[in-house]
Amino acid sequence: MTEKTTAELEKLRGLIDGVDNQLLHLLRKRLDLVAQVGAVKHAAGLPIYAPAREAAMLGKRREEAQAMGVNPQLIEDVLRRLMRESYLSEKDVGFKQIKPDLGQIVIIGGKGQLGRLFAQMFSLSGYRVQILDKDDWQVADSLFAGAGLVLVTVPIGSTCELIRSRLGSLPKDCVLADLTSIKEAPLNAMLETHNGPVVGLHPMFGPDVGSLAKQVVVVCHGRGQTQYQWLLEQIGIWGARLVEAEAVRHDKAMQLVQAMRHFSSFVYGLNLCREQADIDSLLEFSSPIYRLELAMVGRLFAQDPLLYADIIFAQQGSLEAIADYLDNYREALALLQAGDRQGFISRFNEVASWFGDYAAQFQRESRAMLQSVNDMKTG
Amino acid sequence: MTEKTTAELEKLRGLIDGVDNQLLHLLRKRLDLVAQVGAVKHAAGLPIYAPAREAAMLGKRREEAQAMGVNPQLIEDVLRRLMRESYLSEKDVGFKQIKPDLGQIVIIGGKGQLGRLFAQMFSLSGYRVQILDKDDWQVADSLFAGAGLVLVTVPIGSTCELIRSRLGSLPKDCVLADLTSIKEAPLNAMLETHNGPVVGLHPMFGPDVGSLAKQVVVVCHGRGQTQYQWLLEQIGIWGARLVEAEAVRHDKAMQLVQAMRHFSSFVYGLNLCREQADIDSLLEFSSPIYRLELAMVGRLFAQDPLLYADIIFAQQGSLEAIADYLDNYREALALLQAGDRQGFISRFNEVASWFGDYAAQFQRESRAMLQSVNDMKTG
Repeated sequence: MTEKTTAELEKLRGLIDGVDNQLLHLLRKRLDLVAQVGAVKHAAGLPIYAPAREAAMLGKRREEAQAMGVNPQLIEDVLRRLMRESYLSEKDVGFKQIKPDLGQIVIIGGKGQLGRLFAQMFSLSGYRVQILDKDDWQVADSLFAGAGLVLVTVPIGSTCELIRSRLGSLPKDCVLADLTSIKEAPLNAMLETHNGPVVGLHPMFGPDVGSLAKQVVVVCHGRGQTQYQWLLEQIGIWGARLVEAEAVRHDKAMQLVQAMRHFSSFVYGLNLCREQADIDSLLEFSSPIYRLELAMVGRLFAQDPLLYADIIFAQQGSLEAIADYLDNYREALALLQAGDRQGFISRFNEVASWFGDYAAQFQRESRAMLQSVNDMKTG
Repeated sequence: MTEKTTAELEKLRGLIDGVDNQLLHLLRKRLDLVAQVGAVKHAAGLPIYAPAREAAMLGKRREEAQAMGVNPQLIEDVLRRLMRESYLSEKDVGFKQIKPDLGQIVIIGGKGQLGRLFAQMFSLSGYRVQILDKDDWQVADSLFAGAGLVLVTVPIGSTCELIRSRLGSLPKDCVLADLTSIKEAPLNAMLETHNGPVVGLHPMFGPDVGSLAKQVVVVCHGRGQTQYQWLLEQIGIWGARLVEAEAVRHDKAMQLVQAMRHFSSFVYGLNLCREQADIDSLLEFSSPIYRLELAMVGRLFAQDPLLYADIIFAQQGSLEAIADYLDNYREALALLQAGDRQGFISRFNEVASWFGDYAAQFQRESRAMLQSVNDMKTG
C-alpha cells in the first residue's frame, strides 16, 4: 500500500468514525423517544405492538429513502431492528394491568422456563403471582382460596392427571387455563374438573424470546369467555397475536408443526452422529443456508430431552405422521436406487405445484433470512 | 384514547419522524464514505472484505455503545446491515483486475445462472468474457485460440464428458477450471484432457447472493498453481473466502452438506403434499422457527428440479448416506412405536454429547437468526 493510499484511507475512516458516533447518538435518542411513547401508551392502556401503524410508518420511511437514493429495504431493516430493541425494553416500564381487581394468580409449574416467563409478565403488569411447584402441594388450598387465575404449565405427560386430581375445588369464578402444547385432552380435563371459566392457551414460542411482541398465542375457548376475556386482552397488551383455533384442528396441525419437525431434526442429528461427521469440516464448507440448517438441528440438542420426548410422545396421531414420512422417504430412496431421475423430477414437480405461489414466496423470504445470516458471519 | 394522550403521542411521533430523517441522511452519508473507501481500495487493488479490520471496528463501536447505554448488539447489527449494503454497491465501482494481460475468458455454460454471475464478476473486473453455450460449438475453436481461462459450468451429468470430448486442444498456457459441485471426477477429467494449468472450484452459494463478500469458494488444486494463482486472488478481490480442500474429502462432505440435505428437504415437502397439509393453517400457527423451516423447504420447490436431481444423483456415496438416514429413522420410529421414552432420551443424550459445545453455540446462533426472522414479521 502506498503512503498516499494509507493517508486517504485513514482520513475516510476518521470521517466514518464521526458518522458512527452521530449514529449512536441518534439510536439512543430514538430509543428514548419510543420509550416515551411506550410510557404514554402504558398509562393509557394501549397495546405496545400496533401492526397497522408500524406498517404505515415503514411505508413512509421507504418512500423518503427512495427519494434520497437509499435502498428502501435498508431503512426498513434498520428500523425493524430498532423496534425489536424497543419491544425488549418495554419490560422496564411494565405493562398496563387489565384486571386490577383480580385475586392472585397461581402458576402451577411456575419454576419451569415458560412458567417463569409468564410469572414475570404478570408481575410486570401489576398482578400478585404465586408459584406452585411439585413440592408445594401442602399450601395449595390456601393459595387457591384467593385465586383469580390458575395457570397450569407442567410437562404434557402429567397435565391431565394433575388437573383431574388436584384442581377439583377451585373458587367458582376462578379462571382455569393451561399452556400445554396439545390442547384437546387438557381442555377436556379442565372442563370436566372445574365448573368455572376455562380456556386453553398454547404460546407458540420458546421461553428465550425476550419480548412477546409479534409472537403467536393459540387460544382454544373452553367456557365462560366473558370471565377470561381480560386474560386475552392482557396477553395482547404484551404484544402477542392471539390466534383462535378449535382444539382438534390445533392438535392435528401440531403433529406436523411440532412433533414431525422435532423428530426429523432429532433423526438428522442422530444420523450426523452415527456417520461420525466432522462438524468442523462441515462448517468450513458451509454456505449460510447449510450453516443455518445445522444450527437449527444442533440447537435441539442444547435443550431438555424430556421436553422433546413429551412433545413427540404426546399424540398417537404424531406417530402416524412420522410413520407416513418414513414411507415417503423409502419411496423416494427407491427412485434414487433405481437411478430414476425422471421419477424424481416428476415427484418434484408434483410437490412444486402443490406449494403453488408459496414456493416463490418462501424463496423470497428465505433469501432475506439468509442475507441476514450472512451478515452475522465474521470469519 | 383521551385527547391528551392523542396529543402527546402525536408530538412524540413528530420527534421520531425528525430523528428518522436525520438517520436517513446519516445512512446516505456513511454509504457514500464507504463507497469512497471502496474506490481508494479499488485503485490500490486491495480486497473489499477485510475481516480483521471489520472486527476491530465493530469492537470499538460496541464499546462506545456500552458507554452510552446502548445495547452493543444493536449497533453491531445495524452496522453489519450497512456493510452488506456497501458490499452490494461495490459492483457499481467494479473490481481491480489482477491479470490485465490475460487473453479472453471463455465460460462454457455461461447462460446458466452461476455462469452469468461469474461472467458479470469477470466483466466488472475488466476481463473480456465470451460465453459458449450448447449451440455455439461451431465457434469454439476460434474462442479457445485466444483464451487465457476456460471455465466449465454445465450440469454435473455432462461435465466430465464435455471436458474429455471438447477440451483436448486448449492453448498450452490456458487455465482450465470448473464450478461443479462435486470435484474429484471433473478434476481428473480436466487433468487427463488438458496438459496446462488446472484447478477445480466449487462456489458454496446460490446465484442469487448479490455480493460475493463473505461467501465461500472451495479450491481443489490440480496442476500449475503459479499459473492460476491470479484467479484465486481475483476471487479474493470479489470478497469471497477461499477454502482449500482435497477433492475426495470435499466430495465426501458434500454427500452430507448437499445431497443429504436437499433430499431430506425434498421428502419433507413430498410428505406435506401427500398429507395434504393446509399451508395457510400451518403458517397461522407457526412460530418463527417453524416458519423458517417451512420456508427453507418451500424455497427448494421454486427452483429447477434438474439442478437438484443433478446434485442428488451425482455421487454413489450420497445414495449410501441417504440410505443410512433411512435406517436411523426406522430405528428411532421403532422407539416411538414401542412407547420407549427412555430409549429416545438416551439416544438424545448420545447425540447431545457428540455435538458437545457446538450445541450451545448453535442455540445462540439460531436465537439471533430467529430474532431477525421475527423482525421481518408484519402481521
